[in-house]
Amino acid sequence: MVVNQSVRELHHFIGGKMVTGTSSRFADVYNPSIGTVIAKVPLADREEVKAAIDAAKAAFPAWKATSVGKRVEIIHRFRNLLVENLDELINTICEESGKTKEDAKGEITRGLESVDLALNAPHLLKGEYSVNVGGDINALSTKSPLGVVATIAPFNFPIMVPLAISSMAVAVGNSVILKPSERVPISALYLSKLWQEAGLPDGVWTVVNGDKEAVNELLENPTIQAISFVGSTPVAEYIYQTGTKHNKRVAAFGGGKNFMIVMPDANLEQTANAFLGAAYGAASQRCMAISGAIPVGKETADRFVAILKEKVAALKVGPYTDDSSDFGPVITEQSKNAIIEHINTAITEGAQVVVDGRNPSISANSNGFYLGPTLLDHVTPTMKVYQEEVFGPARIIVRAESLQEAIDLINDHELGNGVTMFTNNGLAARKFQEEIEVGMVGINVPIPIPVGYHNFGGWKRSKFGEGHMFGPDQARFFTKSKTISEKWLSNDEDNGSSFAFPSNNTIS
Amino acid sequence: MVVNQSVRELHHFIGGKMVTGTSSRFADVYNPSIGTVIAKVPLADREEVKAAIDAAKAAFPAWKATSVGKRVEIIHRFRNLLVENLDELINTICEESGKTKEDAKGEITRGLESVDLALNAPHLLKGEYSVNVGGDINALSTKSPLGVVATIAPFNFPIMVPLAISSMAVAVGNSVILKPSERVPISALYLSKLWQEAGLPDGVWTVVNGDKEAVNELLENPTIQAISFVGSTPVAEYIYQTGTKHNKRVAAFGGGKNFMIVMPDANLEQTANAFLGAAYGAASQRCMAISGAIPVGKETADRFVAILKEKVAALKVGPYTDDSSDFGPVITEQSKNAIIEHINTAITEGAQVVVDGRNPSISANSNGFYLGPTLLDHVTPTMKVYQEEVFGPARIIVRAESLQEAIDLINDHELGNGVTMFTNNGLAARKFQEEIEVGMVGINVPIPIPVGYHNFGGWKRSKFGEGHMFGPDQARFFTKSKTISEKWLSNDEDNGSSFAFPSNNTIS
Amino acid sequence: MVVNQSVRELHHFIGGKMVTGTSSRFADVYNPSIGTVIAKVPLADREEVKAAIDAAKAAFPAWKATSVGKRVEIIHRFRNLLVENLDELINTICEESGKTKEDAKGEITRGLESVDLALNAPHLLKGEYSVNVGGDINALSTKSPLGVVATIAPFNFPIMVPLAISSMAVAVGNSVILKPSERVPISALYLSKLWQEAGLPDGVWTVVNGDKEAVNELLENPTIQAISFVGSTPVAEYIYQTGTKHNKRVAAFGGGKNFMIVMPDANLEQTANAFLGAAYGAASQRCMAISGAIPVGKETADRFVAILKEKVAALKVGPYTDDSSDFGPVITEQSKNAIIEHINTAITEGAQVVVDGRNPSISANSNGFYLGPTLLDHVTPTMKVYQEEVFGPARIIVRAESLQEAIDLINDHELGNGVTMFTNNGLAARKFQEEIEVGMVGINVPIPIPVGYHNFGGWKRSKFGEGHMFGPDQARFFTKSKTISEKWLSNDEDNGSSFAFPSNNTIS
Amino acid sequence: MVVNQSVRELHHFIGGKMVTGTSSRFADVYNPSIGTVIAKVPLADREEVKAAIDAAKAAFPAWKATSVGKRVEIIHRFRNLLVENLDELINTICEESGKTKEDAKGEITRGLESVDLALNAPHLLKGEYSVNVGGDINALSTKSPLGVVATIAPFNFPIMVPLAISSMAVAVGNSVILKPSERVPISALYLSKLWQEAGLPDGVWTVVNGDKEAVNELLENPTIQAISFVGSTPVAEYIYQTGTKHNKRVAAFGGGKNFMIVMPDANLEQTANAFLGAAYGAASQRCMAISGAIPVGKETADRFVAILKEKVAALKVGPYTDDSSDFGPVITEQSKNAIIEHINTAITEGAQVVVDGRNPSISANSNGFYLGPTLLDHVTPTMKVYQEEVFGPARIIVRAESLQEAIDLINDHELGNGVTMFTNNGLAARKFQEEIEVGMVGINVPIPIPVGYHNFGGWKRSKFGEGHMFGPDQARFFTKSKTISEKWLSNDEDNGSSFAFPSNNTIS
Repeated sequence: MVVNQSVRELHHFIGGKMVTGTSSRFADVYNPSIGTVIAKVPLADREEVKAAIDAAKAAFPAWKATSVGKRVEIIHRFRNLLVENLDELINTICEESGKTKEDAKGEITRGLESVDLALNAPHLLKGEYSVNVGGDINALSTKSPLGVVATIAPFNFPIMVPLAISSMAVAVGNSVILKPSERVPISALYLSKLWQEAGLPDGVWTVVNGDKEAVNELLENPTIQAISFVGSTPVAEYIYQTGTKHNKRVAAFGGGKNFMIVMPDANLEQTANAFLGAAYGAASQRCMAISGAIPVGKETADRFVAILKEKVAALKVGPYTDDSSDFGPVITEQSKNAIIEHINTAITEGAQVVVDGRNPSISANSNGFYLGPTLLDHVTPTMKVYQEEVFGPARIIVRAESLQEAIDLINDHELGNGVTMFTNNGLAARKFQEEIEVGMVGINVPIPIPVGYHNFGGWKRSKFGEGHMFGPDQARFFTKSKTISEKWLSNDEDNGSSFAFPSNNTIS
Repeated sequence: MVVNQSVRELHHFIGGKMVTGTSSRFADVYNPSIGTVIAKVPLADREEVKAAIDAAKAAFPAWKATSVGKRVEIIHRFRNLLVENLDELINTICEESGKTKEDAKGEITRGLESVDLALNAPHLLKGEYSVNVGGDINALSTKSPLGVVATIAPFNFPIMVPLAISSMAVAVGNSVILKPSERVPISALYLSKLWQEAGLPDGVWTVVNGDKEAVNELLENPTIQAISFVGSTPVAEYIYQTGTKHNKRVAAFGGGKNFMIVMPDANLEQTANAFLGAAYGAASQRCMAISGAIPVGKETADRFVAILKEKVAALKVGPYTDDSSDFGPVITEQSKNAIIEHINTAITEGAQVVVDGRNPSISANSNGFYLGPTLLDHVTPTMKVYQEEVFGPARIIVRAESLQEAIDLINDHELGNGVTMFTNNGLAARKFQEEIEVGMVGINVPIPIPVGYHNFGGWKRSKFGEGHMFGPDQARFFTKSKTISEKWLSNDEDNGSSFAFPSNNTIS
Repeated sequence: MVVNQSVRELHHFIGGKMVTGTSSRFADVYNPSIGTVIAKVPLADREEVKAAIDAAKAAFPAWKATSVGKRVEIIHRFRNLLVENLDELINTICEESGKTKEDAKGEITRGLESVDLALNAPHLLKGEYSVNVGGDINALSTKSPLGVVATIAPFNFPIMVPLAISSMAVAVGNSVILKPSERVPISALYLSKLWQEAGLPDGVWTVVNGDKEAVNELLENPTIQAISFVGSTPVAEYIYQTGTKHNKRVAAFGGGKNFMIVMPDANLEQTANAFLGAAYGAASQRCMAISGAIPVGKETADRFVAILKEKVAALKVGPYTDDSSDFGPVITEQSKNAIIEHINTAITEGAQVVVDGRNPSISANSNGFYLGPTLLDHVTPTMKVYQEEVFGPARIIVRAESLQEAIDLINDHELGNGVTMFTNNGLAARKFQEEIEVGMVGINVPIPIPVGYHNFGGWKRSKFGEGHMFGPDQARFFTKSKTISEKWLSNDEDNGSSFAFPSNNTIS
Repeated sequence: MVVNQSVRELHHFIGGKMVTGTSSRFADVYNPSIGTVIAKVPLADREEVKAAIDAAKAAFPAWKATSVGKRVEIIHRFRNLLVENLDELINTICEESGKTKEDAKGEITRGLESVDLALNAPHLLKGEYSVNVGGDINALSTKSPLGVVATIAPFNFPIMVPLAISSMAVAVGNSVILKPSERVPISALYLSKLWQEAGLPDGVWTVVNGDKEAVNELLENPTIQAISFVGSTPVAEYIYQTGTKHNKRVAAFGGGKNFMIVMPDANLEQTANAFLGAAYGAASQRCMAISGAIPVGKETADRFVAILKEKVAALKVGPYTDDSSDFGPVITEQSKNAIIEHINTAITEGAQVVVDGRNPSISANSNGFYLGPTLLDHVTPTMKVYQEEVFGPARIIVRAESLQEAIDLINDHELGNGVTMFTNNGLAARKFQEEIEVGMVGINVPIPIPVGYHNFGGWKRSKFGEGHMFGPDQARFFTKSKTISEKWLSNDEDNGSSFAFPSNNTIS
């Protein structure tokens, strides 16, 4: 694989213009498939972020005053542009994230679901209206946009997450500032171009590139009304605590440790196939990736591991330019090393290596950040590889004696993003569905990501804050409710004064 | 007025039992109408709060597992008991808060609206169900109770606020710990009795009396999943920042500076009557009390103040035992002094006294914490009495030249709880309704408190957190969403492995 | 069993008064457990019905203008009275319908669910409110009561169906005329007493006793806005066609032929127990009674029939005064004869008698309309006993080779009220749930009646009309929607004239 | 204006193919602007309609089984094609209906709102899900498509009404048969082309051209599950009564007599301008056209008529090829004559002619079906021109002494489609909004057509049937509800038999 590309200097997108960074701080953007720097992205200082916020604030009143019908008309055009630019978007994603083309296409398709959701804004913005709640008063409610909101996105879905956490915010009338991951800024800037082409007024959509300094300005600046974040749990917790310390509305989505319970009655061949894609796809760099399997019963475990051993070993890691690659590199050299360290520690702690991916042979390009698939058996809750999210293709087998033990294991884990179970038994599925302390649950569905028009979000330390940033509840997160009590008086009546607390009911 | 009453020692209500305080710290509970201590309330230390939390936690699993139909059946009985105990509840409120009987009855009636709302739990708990969102997957969602939640209530509505911020929490399956104001613990304990009589299992409802130490334990204890608070803005902010620092879901409602815009076309006699009750009722100790009027235009202001001068001066302050009292004392001697200090400062800063209530003649009992009604004219935004919530019967007139100026004044204030306007003009009302940056809006409604089945909550520094603790959104605040993707497999089909990110749409 | 009772003359309940019938036509009301006439019920002629309609019409405007909060307050009191009068209601039901006390209590409890649903009227009446749908227009909608509506109830649920098809109608502001079955008028009149005691204004609730003449006046009278009916399919069809011919809104619920599919993996002992109560309870006189079982596979059928044979034969039929009775008599002598005729015909057509209930030995009282439990095996789709609803304790076994055949059989039947399946297999359950052409579906639930806050209603010839009379959609059936587009003009702007069709979107 | 065009023979669109008519009956399609036949449209006989129904039925199962996401994807493409074909669609509408280009564009834009609404199908199809409604039963509901549905459209909106009454029907999974007006079949056939190009499977969308014979087959054929109709009141009534006689679900929208109340405080110049477009636009051939004004008070009436006299007289009627035309011809020569007859009768009955449009001078083409604008004053309720919908540019003034009289007049009229009022007074507007017996209400909005995401529909004889065919309630009209009660059993527990009626509540 040969990519001939000079190192471009990227920009911010502020007030409808591509703006050169002035902080003189930059980060390298890699093509992880070849281990080469392809661009340098400016890291905004606080003044640059403030300027971006000011531009967003200036755009807000006119955008808020635009009817939702006209706002949605722009979303329609934006949707069409995304479809028209599909190939270019795929290439951009693949280049800076390393994922396969098919995977990048899946990501965009999923992102489109969020755009489609934003097309529902006229419905999701509806308030309630009650006639004569007492005393000829009508009560009604409305949902108002918040103002300037910030969304902070991770590297693993360069297009999908920005679409997911900003489309609705735009549609309901906010100005949105996106701070993409400094690993994948090119995709975010590409979206800026499309928003502008769709007719979005300048300042309604902003991209500020940066690192913690930019994030902190967003968290502290009083103009920012809400923060939505997707990333790792420690950062999500920091975002939640810091944003709320500045009285903001915050929804911060963290990592996952997502298990697949395998029941004895499951078809193990089918289940293993489902496991492969859900566990190793995108080099396991998904917050909803299956982290490991929990086969129930020794016999199930032995048979399942035997089937997996062969299948996992046969997986092909390679660059996105090779269509036969099952998955690509991890995002950085540091990430690669951290995953290897995770495997090493697990072995020290007693895990058994079924498949070892630490030294993959990648003929295509030896400088890419590749790791082969690793499968560890006999992992237990005391091991680090069990307790922490591993953002790379090292997956684990945890053995349980019973469904109850499997459920208890999962419920005791501090993360609660996703989980799935394979079985044909209705009773087992219901018990699982009811008792499991996890926000997104699959039954015979390998990656239980809800469809775009249902809510997405984990429990426990996988999600901080009440709100949902994906799914229909987004429209609530990005608006505030106003309740109006309306009455009209006749000039010739006199209602006198009432000193009692008003109520429209009576007790008798 | 003579009340002959020994000083009782109050309890906590933990695990279905009245429990004696063990901290050896107590607070005095006054009858503010006579300025006499009627009870001493134990102030829980951290260990006592922990014990209460443990009891609540122990009760949760069984309560959660109880069908919503059976939970609501208990709410029905609780509602009936509230109605049956109406007179006793009124007396309890009046005695410890000083408000008039009519006002106490209004409070209870309003509280019943929250209980009625909780009867809707079966509807408000419904999740969504979608057939075949793609690949024969059905998607569904559920709302699960959070676990143990805490509600921290203010002194000014001893019954209504506890009902409002706990009935739904109970109905949807949580265990609830109420920390009432140490000024009015008797009402909260009375509710405990009724809950128990209604058949609520022990531990589902808890009352812990205390001060900041108890609050801090509730804010920091990892078992507590959510905090709902009603009180002053500084404390609301503390609650929000501290609760979220411990990763909790928090909704904290603070104070208000609620203005009544008086338009030139309004019937000023009607409007003045509306003002009286809304501004001075309950000695102005309501977060939704009208703090002041903004007449539009000099002529309107002059006429309105002239009408008010006479009416305000005629208001009668006195004990609840006298049915002709328009309002009663403020809650404490300290509060009385603070309000007088507010008036003094305002005069120093240039406000003009229309009616002076600093030295009321109260024949009934000279030791009660009484203040007469005060009205200050020509108040301006730079004055302290304008900027801060005054929790007592000192109300202000702020003069504006135009509707736009009136709206701008209100929008520039840091609080945004309630607001109202008196006019017959549809265009003015619409402009006001749309542009005003306040959460609860009245049009010709003196106190724009939404009816119980609509959302309650302010904007800006009157409310911290996304959630609504009153109104139908309560059911969301006190639950968490789980989304399930369900599919059933045939053993003889093999879906293979998919390494791409899953989506149910296709782009073509 | 000895009931000493003179034959009372019953009344109508019109305008808040018990009114003597003037038509000089009467029907006998029996106690079916002893076969004795206990009352005679007047059959209204058209003039009497018109008078009732006039009284209901006169009451409508004030009731509509009453706030929903006050209307619901009456529903609360009505609910409490139902609970307080439980024993008396049970006795009334048992006496005129013959069902067991436990069954009567179940019926009332279920009826209470409909009353509870009506308590949700404030929510279910909410309209929608959209700000600035374009051109500064706000759009809003309201739900208005229809006016005078009629509900026509069957004999088999003397209390539940009247509650179910009228509570919401009352709560949302209509005047309701109930025509109960002339077999069970005493229960309906009892309800009238409770409504009045609860404070419902005179004329809002009316009971007109009668037969087809009264029904026809209700169907044809232009004041009647909507008809809700529950009964047999031929009458439901007549009601739908005749009511709509007079331009009314009609929902008419007919009969059922409700099958239980028994899968080979089901626990047949459990399933047989579930079958017994669902099939023979209330002497099978329920539109949701299980009419028959469809075991899948010969082995399943043989085993299931063997188990049932013993259990069915052991069932005890007898009067409600004997607590050990499993079920009581059928409603009339004619009904008894018709069921025997059904059995005779089935035998002629080739059905095999497993248990024969045609000649039960009832020591208690030989004049009651008793039938023992009958079970017929090898019933096929060409037999009359298969095609028609049999409203009495003759149940059938239909044998199918496969799940697909079972589903096809059910889908080919003209009725589609209820159906259930017993299995532990998730895939089978899903296939069944998706493909079955029936409105109410059970999975391991013997009688799949939805809980009160979900919709009730069959498909195919089991229900005529779009509307739902039970469940939350009731509030829609009993109201009509008004949509308001509101704008306020400034006198000094001129919008000119637009001759194009107005739209708030633009195409560009 | 010269249009050189041969007379084309049109087709049906059945099973994805343009099909030649075989009945040998045809109707002439005119260009009303030049009075010339431009096409002949085949009138299907019953056999042709049956064949179309068969093709639609054959397509249903696969379309129903298609996930809603994929169905909506086709709606997206269809929407894009409508926008791309805008100019061609405008020309088609103008040619066969005679309306102006601007008006045709407005119609299409409005039609797009219905397509946008259909994009919300994933949300609007959601069922409800309740966990543990008692006894570990989960209750859930789904919405299933009906099967083959028919929509019968009028001439006055050749594109908008077909889009409005079919887009959602398609999106939720039905096969749809459109019978367009035989006056405007070309537009309907154009839509067929676009549906096919968008990827809609053959048979899901069908166009059958015809007259009453085709309509009757649709009304009687048992395969047709639902009928939606828009047209005149007498035909709507026929459709409702005939469709329901065949047990179908029917929503039939009829005509309107839509008044504009003019209050004394209204700006009469503004109001007159609003009246012009709303009353005479599209040659008044809209069911929501303003039929007349009701000025309140003699002074208001005199001034308003004086202003209108001048403005109405200045209106320009002419062909769509002339951009300065305010409106075009009426649809046929017969329609023209009927309107003239209406005017003649009104004059005989005592109406005063303010502006007489019976003999317009149209230089462009003397053979078009043109009528100038007519305004009649002093019209009273006894006149025919008051009682009936006049589908052409003859509008009336009805004088009322008070708002109450104006409201009473409107409420006494048998039609109740639309109504509007011009005023600045909030109290008057509220009284009007509450008391008026009309389904669609404007306040200072000349044509109160609700935006696409709110419900559309009149009251009284303007709408037959419960359902809404426009707006979000469409999704209910075109689906049926299934309620599932689901439980899973453990093989080792035995629940025994229950003979009582099942309920999940308990009374105690």
